[in-house]
Amino acid sequence: MNSDIIKDFERVSPEVVKQASVFAASILADVAGRRGTLDGRIQPVSPAMRLAGPAFTIEVRAGDNLMIHAAISMAKPGDILVIDGKADRTCALMGSIMINACKQLKLAGVVIDAAIRDSLDLREIGFPVFAVGANPNGPTKFVPGRINWPISCGGIAVAPGDLIVGDADGVLVVEREKAASLLEAAQKKEDDETARIAAIKQGKDLKPKWLDASLRAAGLLKEGETL
Amino acid sequence: MNSDIIKDFERVSPEVVKQASVFAASILADVAGRRGTLDGRIQPVSPAMRLAGPAFTIEVRAGDNLMIHAAISMAKPGDILVIDGKADRTCALMGSIMINACKQLKLAGVVIDAAIRDSLDLREIGFPVFAVGANPNGPTKFVPGRINWPISCGGIAVAPGDLIVGDADGVLVVEREKAASLLEAAQKKEDDETARIAAIKQGKDLKPKWLDASLRAAGLLKEGETL
Amino acid sequence: MNSDIIKDFERVSPEVVKQASVFAASILADVAGRRGTLDGRIQPVSPAMRLAGPAFTIEVRAGDNLMIHAAISMAKPGDILVIDGKADRTCALMGSIMINACKQLKLAGVVIDAAIRDSLDLREIGFPVFAVGANPNGPTKFVPGRINWPISCGGIAVAPGDLIVGDADGVLVVEREKAASLLEAAQKKEDDETARIAAIKQGKDLKPKWLDASLRAAGLLKEGETL
Amino acid sequence: MNSDIIKDFERVSPEVVKQASVFAASILADVAGRRGTLDGRIQPVSPAMRLAGPAFTIEVRAGDNLMIHAAISMAKPGDILVIDGKADRTCALMGSIMINACKQLKLAGVVIDAAIRDSLDLREIGFPVFAVGANPNGPTKFVPGRINWPISCGGIAVAPGDLIVGDADGVLVVEREKAASLLEAAQKKEDDETARIAAIKQGKDLKPKWLDASLRAAGLLKEGETL
Amino acid sequence: MNSDIIKDFERVSPEVVKQASVFAASILADVAGRRGTLDGRIQPVSPAMRLAGPAFTIEVRAGDNLMIHAAISMAKPGDILVIDGKADRTCALMGSIMINACKQLKLAGVVIDAAIRDSLDLREIGFPVFAVGANPNGPTKFVPGRINWPISCGGIAVAPGDLIVGDADGVLVVEREKAASLLEAAQKKEDDETARIAAIKQGKDLKPKWLDASLRAAGLLKEGETL
Amino acid sequence: MNSDIIKDFERVSPEVVKQASVFAASILADVAGRRGTLDGRIQPVSPAMRLAGPAFTIEVRAGDNLMIHAAISMAKPGDILVIDGKADRTCALMGSIMINACKQLKLAGVVIDAAIRDSLDLREIGFPVFAVGANPNGPTKFVPGRINWPISCGGIAVAPGDLIVGDADGVLVVEREKAASLLEAAQKKEDDETARIAAIKQGKDLKPKWLDASLRAAGLLKEGETL
Repeated sequence: MNSDIIKDFERVSPEVVKQASVFAASILADVAGRRGTLDGRIQPVSPAMRLAGPAFTIEVRAGDNLMIHAAISMAKPGDILVIDGKADRTCALMGSIMINACKQLKLAGVVIDAAIRDSLDLREIGFPVFAVGANPNGPTKFVPGRINWPISCGGIAVAPGDLIVGDADGVLVVEREKAASLLEAAQKKEDDETARIAAIKQGKDLKPKWLDASLRAAGLLKEGETL
Repeated sequence: MNSDIIKDFERVSPEVVKQASVFAASILADVAGRRGTLDGRIQPVSPAMRLAGPAFTIEVRAGDNLMIHAAISMAKPGDILVIDGKADRTCALMGSIMINACKQLKLAGVVIDAAIRDSLDLREIGFPVFAVGANPNGPTKFVPGRINWPISCGGIAVAPGDLIVGDADGVLVVEREKAASLLEAAQKKEDDETARIAAIKQGKDLKPKWLDASLRAAGLLKEGETL
Repeated sequence: MNSDIIKDFERVSPEVVKQASVFAASILADVAGRRGTLDGRIQPVSPAMRLAGPAFTIEVRAGDNLMIHAAISMAKPGDILVIDGKADRTCALMGSIMINACKQLKLAGVVIDAAIRDSLDLREIGFPVFAVGANPNGPTKFVPGRINWPISCGGIAVAPGDLIVGDADGVLVVEREKAASLLEAAQKKEDDETARIAAIKQGKDLKPKWLDASLRAAGLLKEGETL
Repeated sequence: MNSDIIKDFERVSPEVVKQASVFAASILADVAGRRGTLDGRIQPVSPAMRLAGPAFTIEVRAGDNLMIHAAISMAKPGDILVIDGKADRTCALMGSIMINACKQLKLAGVVIDAAIRDSLDLREIGFPVFAVGANPNGPTKFVPGRINWPISCGGIAVAPGDLIVGDADGVLVVEREKAASLLEAAQKKEDDETARIAAIKQGKDLKPKWLDASLRAAGLLKEGETL
Repeated sequence: MNSDIIKDFERVSPEVVKQASVFAASILADVAGRRGTLDGRIQPVSPAMRLAGPAFTIEVRAGDNLMIHAAISMAKPGDILVIDGKADRTCALMGSIMINACKQLKLAGVVIDAAIRDSLDLREIGFPVFAVGANPNGPTKFVPGRINWPISCGGIAVAPGDLIVGDADGVLVVEREKAASLLEAAQKKEDDETARIAAIKQGKDLKPKWLDASLRAAGLLKEGETL
Repeated sequence: MNSDIIKDFERVSPEVVKQASVFAASILADVAGRRGTLDGRIQPVSPAMRLAGPAFTIEVRAGDNLMIHAAISMAKPGDILVIDGKADRTCALMGSIMINACKQLKLAGVVIDAAIRDSLDLREIGFPVFAVGANPNGPTKFVPGRINWPISCGGIAVAPGDLIVGDADGVLVVEREKAASLLEAAQKKEDDETARIAAIKQGKDLKPKWLDASLRAAGLLKEGETL
């Protein structure tokens, strides 16, 4: 096998995936250092779609899906195909045949920086797909690419095995080694936000406690001044 | 308080807002001289959302929402936050905490030239938010900006106090001083359009009466010729 | 009449339109040589919208719809207005009045490389419209353009009379002379895909039979090697 | 030969090309009805480059130049290759080898809606190339496309044989049948503009004579009023 | 005269313009609060072009220059035309005739959020023009717009009379009332930068003195730690 | 030191850099598998600029350059700063002070997916800088980011230590481990291209020998047929 295809890599653990999957991507992004989310052009085919799992990475040239076919046959249950399709919208790289295969093989989702097709079918199948819109045009199937090398997808570097979490807001990538360390902070963040929203709904603390200090630090309020 | 924050400004009157709120943004845009609507990238989080009110303007640097927190604490019930977020989609500047606070404080809506997050929650809250898509990534909270200076949002100049009207088609800005003068023409325009559509549905006047004359004026038909 | 307006042209036959209309745009695009679909920026106003028919082509300057008014009065039942609006999103070129007229005149749809307005009304009317988003701003109505000359729309050349097919994935253009020859292949393609999906759902042939050979041809597998 | 390749087509005459080549693209665009110029993303590799000749049209899929190689071997001296490269900037479709061949074969220029490479060499060779920037990445050479079908390039429909004129401002396309009829008007336009500029340089008629009337017609001046 | 045209407005003083004109736009942008520069799409036609003066603002609909003709006849020597052309690149709004008139009338420059033409001539004329590229296509001359209302240009709000400063890096807008107050700080900033560069060239202070403290404040270094 | 800053990493060897630096980026991209070049938006500040060296990677949030200051103090002679600036063009992240420091410290170049300023000075300094245009606006200097983590720059994943090569066509990234293995093939490729161009200039082999076979393989020529 050509060195452009890498078969073995370490995946973020199923336990970490399971725990991460209950959080909103936004909560995890906050505790991951406010970075790591794909460009907003990559959105779920249907807003209810969610996914979590290790990245199985694919790089193709614009308009060809040969490597995605290979990847579907190589990926393991629970994997998420993360595909650098060069943000091309002039043709679709996946449709209902391939997404049905992904579902049947128990993959956990697809994140693709390119267009898909059969979008109504995809909503019905219910398998989570995040993409850059739809186009009826089909791909070619014979151009070489790479599998499980680090890629850029939606402006973010993704390594095979990284944790991928996606929901209605978009997709987050967390380095495999860092994923486990975020879970506790994520729970705390979620609890804090829930409490904060509850307070706001009761009309309490509508002005954040840190606000005046931050405005002072930014030079917008003078010492001692409040908003 | 630093001169970058302006507290007091004149708002379009509640009476004008109330009367304007019953019209489609498109009707008002027509009588406002066929100008003043934000770029189509700024869309409602849910198509049913509508808003009308005076602009409370905010300019931030890409990726930071300190000034939006300040603005929420400063705005008055009925105000619409209009935010120049530099069209950045690499992170969200607002989410469910801030939007809940806006609702609790009885603001009338948010128009933001940047991304938001917690988009499913935002649909549920029902508070009208118009934005450039979603991203799970969070903002920083410490970079200075400006409040209630004239801004550019979606390619249109907006002054504090201007009338903002938004619906499924997008957002219109009308200068405060001109807003009242449009209402009568808007009503007439709406009546005319309703009558025109009723006629069309009955198969009458399918060809506009002005068409041949306009084609002649444009040099497409000769004198006396009809389509 | 100025030579910029062409009245007579040959249309793809109603029989071919009827037969083509039962296929997904993606199926037809595949058998048309994997080309001919408009850029993904042009999407249906509502995902359930579908259309099929001969192209009635219009070229306007950005922001003016005089020629579209002329076209509505000239087009025949079953025609699809295909409009090069220069991909402009700063104003709408069509709204509910014009779309009601199109429906009343039994046109078969509108494909426009520009924005529309009254988008909620358009969903209700149910007449198929494919466009580049919405904007409340209105057009001017007096700038000359051309009717039934070859145009570029969404990055694809369209001649008057060409077959247009659109669905939730987007819009396909097929040269008039080639349209009839695709129908048999389209049926075969659809049958094959249906069978393929049925097999996949039963867990059969999840790996495409051609895959190893293609990977070998692309230099990714050595002679005799399989994935 | 597959029907995707068309060998024979009628070209705008060498005499018309010769006469057109002395005019600025802008002058010809004006008399051609203020339309027909490619999107501003397509610019000359060096501002001094100029070209004029009949279009030899090519459509490729993003990132592959097989059909351009075929086209170079098929085109006739004086032809201009006009290539729909789908506006892709992730790789170059032509470089110094191919451009040297074009020059040796006495083609008249290349207009490509995609990137090129070897840009410094191209400036030295001096053969006129108009493209969408540069990228060091190379193309594949095996994906089918079409030759001498109508294409869309830079948002404009181009038919084989059409007149192409390019200079520092960009590229104009004129339908073959219309080209000859523009030459006289172009000469008159150029003479008028030369006279107008000479007058302006002498401080005469700085305000256009038509201006007040046009402002009145547009409703900006009242009857009798002047600027 | 229609209220869409405003004749009289207060300009930033010639003295302030003169003093501001010696600074780089970047120096002035720094002391103006690191804001107020137009989007990078607006660049000088030639990198040596510089301009400084009060804004004379114009808003047009995409593709029409009637209002620019009116503006040239209305502007005063030293004025800079700042034109919201809606970032359109499908046609040019100005060329050598109009720019020669601007020069003859002793205007100080043009900043236009749209394309120009006759770009080689414009470099020769030497009158400073900042634009979004070139296109040979011409404008129409009959669509109403506005003169000397606040506009958005390159994503920044501009009021008539504001200070405009442009050089090879791009264009800065400073509110008229604030302009005078920046000059002293600009001189200090320039002196500091000159001294800083001189030190660096001698190998002194290559690491900024503030760096460790800022990294500590940002949480990247621990208390007491240095880079 | 916070784990967001990584100090030590393995660099592609100086010997490999030296040998690679004599090749055009396009030659190396070809033998690297026709991939790995940054998006065409990243161009040299002056076309004569060239660079080669190991990547020192930096990720910032849009509009802040704190981490770039840290990086300049940490990088070693010969390093190339490769900066993910989120493709933002609303402000510059580097100017003449920082580039003078880079030069003084004998860094080998800067590749930045963002804007720069002082562009005329930068051309004079002669230190190679590749960027996304210019903007006079300045950055903030206090937002945390990361140093020497894998980044995405111009749509390509870059790891610290990777080989970076840039010239007038743009920038190529080669994985550190693969760089040495490309040199021999690059020399052969260059020799072949030189010979090919020499032949073409003598009018030999203007039609590539492989062309007919490739057209046959692509289904465009029948068995036995030639172009």
